[in-house]
Amino acid sequence: MRVLGVDPGSRFLGYGLVDVIGGRPRHVAHGVVRAGTSVPLEERLEVIFLELGRVIDVFAPEAIAVEGVFTHKNARSALILGHARGVVLLLAARARVPLFEYAPARVKRAIGSGGNDSKDSVARMVTRVLQLQEPLERADAYDALAVACCHAHQVPLAALRPSRRGRGAQPASFASRLAPNVVRPRASVEPVP
Amino acid sequence: MRVLGVDPGSRFLGYGLVDVIGGRPRHVAHGVVRAGTSVPLEERLEVIFLELGRVIDVFAPEAIAVEGVFTHKNARSALILGHARGVVLLLAARARVPLFEYAPARVKRAIGSGGNDSKDSVARMVTRVLQLQEPLERADAYDALAVACCHAHQVPLAALRPSRRGRGAQPASFASRLAPNVVRPRASVEPVP
Repeated sequence: MRVLGVDPGSRFLGYGLVDVIGGRPRHVAHGVVRAGTSVPLEERLEVIFLELGRVIDVFAPEAIAVEGVFTHKNARSALILGHARGVVLLLAARARVPLFEYAPARVKRAIGSGGNDSKDSVARMVTRVLQLQEPLERADAYDALAVACCHAHQVPLAALRPSRRGRGAQPASFASRLAPNVVRPRASVEPVP
Repeated sequence: MRVLGVDPGSRFLGYGLVDVIGGRPRHVAHGVVRAGTSVPLEERLEVIFLELGRVIDVFAPEAIAVEGVFTHKNARSALILGHARGVVLLLAARARVPLFEYAPARVKRAIGSGGNDSKDSVARMVTRVLQLQEPLERADAYDALAVACCHAHQVPLAALRPSRRGRGAQPASFASRLAPNVVRPRASVEPVP
């Protein structure tokens, strides 16, 4: 099972790929889409669409994991972040890759970063879990690998869960692959005008 | 000059096309992309991508106008709206159609809806300005036509403005086509993590 984790941002978008082997995540690749800092938002979104689209084509992930964002206090920065996130979700839908969303606290717990919210702590834990040999250039890539690891932790649980319909460890349907604690905002969002 | 106005929403997305003829907007077409109310967000975004993409292909607008959204109090609904809006901006970039953003108050002023914020007032003024013969099914389409009309009002002004480089009414560059009062949030947004 190959998992693509994404940390969306409209200027820098982190991505990280892990393979789940023997129930543990192994690092495959990571990177940052640099969409530009002074170009119009629509052009940055196109860069994300093309570059992250290429990552999906090349690495063929079987799941895409992103953080659900609920803690934004600033409506305007949430709106801009939503634009980049929208392109990520669109790419998942177009590639027919199941999408999973995790609450930020859940991601931190999954990689053992516990109550420590600092970026440094996430970087340290991702480095340890994935046995990275070199520091990554940007925090966005650590965050992306962290959410990929978080999903990787769910996979063996789902696979080991006895199936009621005798399908064993067969891939379950999209809905039943949703692990507990997975946050999917769609069920409870208010209608958007 | 053909203008596509868009009122983005992740469930219902309104669009409206006007031609600017003799300095006045004339109705061409309008509609609502019904992305579904109970399907996952990523699938709704794909519906928007495909259907609005088809509208752009078929009607070949020379400008796309959307409302800039700055009045959202709720960060979460702003985030969801941002997803749909991101797909609209992406489509504009991919089609190489210049994108224009207008503050909601500017749109209302442009169609003569003045201080009256009600949806009814926008519908009434759009009906009058475009001489619509039948009521539209949803407010989203009125809102989309309103922002298209708002941009249409800018076009003759820009075309009549004497060019310093003697290009007359030639299409100006992307940047110089930005009318006064046009809101482009990109210049002042804070970096998004």
